[in-house]
This record gives sequence, structure tokens and C-alpha cells, in this order.
Amino acid sequence: MNVQMIQKGTIWGVGLGPGDPDLMSVRADRLLRNASHVAYFRKAGRSGQARRILDGMLRPDVTEIAMEYPVTTEIPLSDPRYNALLSAFYEDSAAHLRSLSDAGQEVVVVSEGDPFFYGSFMHLYTRLKDDCPVHVVPAITGMSAAWTATGLPITWGDDVLTVLMGTLPHDALVAQMAASDALVIMKIGRNIEKVREALRAAGRYDAAWLIEHAAMPDQSVQKLSEAGDRVTPYFSIIVVHGNGRRP
Amino acid sequence: MNVQMIQKGTIWGVGLGPGDPDLMSVRADRLLRNASHVAYFRKAGRSGQARRILDGMLRPDVTEIAMEYPVTTEIPLSDPRYNALLSAFYEDSAAHLRSLSDAGQEVVVVSEGDPFFYGSFMHLYTRLKDDCPVHVVPAITGMSAAWTATGLPITWGDDVLTVLMGTLPHDALVAQMAASDALVIMKIGRNIEKVREALRAAGRYDAAWLIEHAAMPDQSVQKLSEAGDRVTPYFSIIVVHGNGRRP
Repeated sequence: MNVQMIQKGTIWGVGLGPGDPDLMSVRADRLLRNASHVAYFRKAGRSGQARRILDGMLRPDVTEIAMEYPVTTEIPLSDPRYNALLSAFYEDSAAHLRSLSDAGQEVVVVSEGDPFFYGSFMHLYTRLKDDCPVHVVPAITGMSAAWTATGLPITWGDDVLTVLMGTLPHDALVAQMAASDALVIMKIGRNIEKVREALRAAGRYDAAWLIEHAAMPDQSVQKLSEAGDRVTPYFSIIVVHGNGRRP
Repeated sequence: MNVQMIQKGTIWGVGLGPGDPDLMSVRADRLLRNASHVAYFRKAGRSGQARRILDGMLRPDVTEIAMEYPVTTEIPLSDPRYNALLSAFYEDSAAHLRSLSDAGQEVVVVSEGDPFFYGSFMHLYTRLKDDCPVHVVPAITGMSAAWTATGLPITWGDDVLTVLMGTLPHDALVAQMAASDALVIMKIGRNIEKVREALRAAGRYDAAWLIEHAAMPDQSVQKLSEAGDRVTPYFSIIVVHGNGRRP
């Protein structure tokens, strides 16, 4: 058989949404239940949150591809080795997926949240899109689950919404927080004290909510000012609601 | 039978996502297929986009509740009669839903996009939440469908994302556009010339994309600079992608 006769398999970049399998899209649910190959990111030695969302959904004969992040905790983000290590990891992962596609295999690559909204899938996407058919299925973002969990709409009328990463420097956080109506702050974890201080400096602290594990069984929602000093996960989300026109 | 013995029916605020029924959540799909009562907003004399997404999904014996916006095109937004008219409309709609809930009836109220992200459902929600059990089901936003349609990730690394309404004044638009990495601009329609000028003033025009009817059969995606002068729908979305860290 001539290898050129094999049609390349599609790589599906499928968002899983915020964590509750019931909040996956109908398309994501169908693709996953029928998938012969499913790929996901995880930390070495962990089962991984993305994989956990899929429990009980996959075919018994599915081939799973766990893409395990290299350990980077010892290397600061500013060190060029950090980028080099991650880059090599994405190259290797993309090469594996490319070889499956070349062999005619469809692969469903899952991401938590929405694939094109922060996250890791896009680093595979940019490496694959010119070589294989890649289709992306959008999903409910973690921030939608977070603001829904507060029981209060995030934006009204002409409200400006700004999405910020807790990894940004203090001054950038304060300037953005002061200039926007509604706020979503992600990548919290050990950045929480910096984020608290920035919210105080911008006059938004008392209006801030902390949401942990949004749309998951252990979801918790509280005013940030009542959250105390405990450690919060990296994937926690802080929101400040807008106050626009409301007839 | 004592009226106090009737358990109040739940009002479900269900997001339909960007327009493709396949992009509804599994939960939304199940609630809608089983619903005895489904409510949606529309303009008088129109079938309505939200209702169109439901074609073929509903039970044959479903009771449909079309909530028709009052005609406001003759009244400027700044006129107090505009707010009064809309407020009365939301009061009436909420009263109808409240009476169904009081009679023990579950009602699924659908919204395009995500119910707590701009939109109309929240005006019912605030009027009902203290009287009836109201549960909100988040959904994929129109903006997620829009950036997915461009085939380019919207945010990387520490990118700041700002969501702006085209209804904002020129100077506010320019200031926000210049201060953010990634942009989403909604409520375009007849605001498009103002938005174009603001993007130019902020130096972001050449990077802007125009997405019409995202995730719908007539979806169109193009660089804004190549879109010409034609009229674009109110629900068009303009995006400018971020350029953050990418290993």
C-alpha cells in the first residue's frame, strides 16, 4: 500500500469546560465517547484534572496518550532553560500526534476550559496546524463557571470586563483593576497576596469574590475579604462584578 | 388542596451557547429535550435566534413562552422612557414566570451565549431569585466561538484580555484598546465606524478580525481591514489576538 494514499487523521482540540462533565458541549461529549485515541496533559505522577473529567466516558479499547509536563519547579520563569524545556516538551508531544495523524488516526486532544483561552493546547496547535487537519471545539470557560457560582451576573449594559493573570506585576494589576468595571483574575495560587494588595490599591478589594474548584464537587465561593489567609489553588478565580445599566 | 403544599417549580436560566445546537452543554440539551415549558426573548414579529437554535429539540407538547421586547427603536437610550419601558417588560415577564413557578411548574428560560455575561436573562434573574428557586447553567460565549473561528488563540501566557461594547464612547474605547493585549469588541452593528476609528487611534486596527454569525451556518471571518464598508450585524464580534509568551 502506498503511504500517500492514507488520508491524514484529524486532530481535535476539544475543550472540556470548567470540570463538570455535564457542562461539556454535546459535540465534545460525542467525540470523546467515540474516540479511539485521547490525549491530555498532566503533571508526572498525577492522574490529572483533565483525565479525571473523562472518568467513565471513554471506550474500553481507547488508546490514552498522557502528555506529562517536564518538571520546571526548580527553574524560574525568567530563566531561558524554562522556555527551552517547555518548548522541547511541546515539540515532542506534537511530533507524536503528527505521527498518529500521518498514520490516518483521529486523536481527540482535550483541554480544561476553552482551548484557545490561555492553557496549553495552543502550543500544540501552532505546531500542528500546517501539517494536519486540526479542528477546535470551544468550551465553557472556567471564568463562566466561577461567575455563575457567585449567583451574580458578571457584566451588564456597557460594562468593561478585564481578564488578568495573577502572575502580572503589582503596578500592571492595579492600573488594569482601576480602569475596568468587571474583573476576572486567574492563575492565583501563590500570587494571592499580590492580587489582594493590588485589589486594595485599586479600591476593588471589598467587591471581590474568591471561587475555588468552580463547577466541581468541592466548589467553594466566598467574599475574598472573608477567605482568610489560607492557601488557594493556582486555578482559583477571583471575580469583581460589573454594575452597568439594569432596567 | 392547600396552595402552600405545592412545591415551587424551578426556573432554569439556560445558556444556549453561540448558536450551533451541538455547542450546547450536555445539561442544557437534556433540560431542553425534557422541558414542559420553555421561555425565550424575541423581537415582536420575529421567530428569534434563540428559538431557532431549539428547532427540532422540543417535546411536541411543550408550552412555549415568547417574551417579546417592546419596540424601543424610536426612543433614545438616554430617554428615561427607554428604561421605564424595558423595566415594565421585565417585570411582566418575571411575573408570568413567577406564577408558573408558584403553580409548581418548571420553566427553562433560554439565553443566547452565557446567561450571566451581558444579555437579558439577568434582568429576570434579579427579579425572581428571591421568590423562586432559580438555577443558572453557564454556556459557551459568543466570543469563544468568534476567536475559535479565526483559527488563532486569543490569549497566551500573561496576556490581558479586555471585553468592550461598541456602544462605549470613542475616548473610552481608545484608552481601553491601547492598554490591553487581547481585545473582544461586541455590540457592533451601527457602532462599527466608531469602533474602527478607535482601533486606528489605538494602533490596533490592522490586527483586528471581524466575525459575523460565529458558529452558525453563515459564519464569516475576515480581517476588519478587508471587510469593506458594508453593514454588519449588531451581534458581530471584533477580536484582536494577544501575543503573550509562547514556548
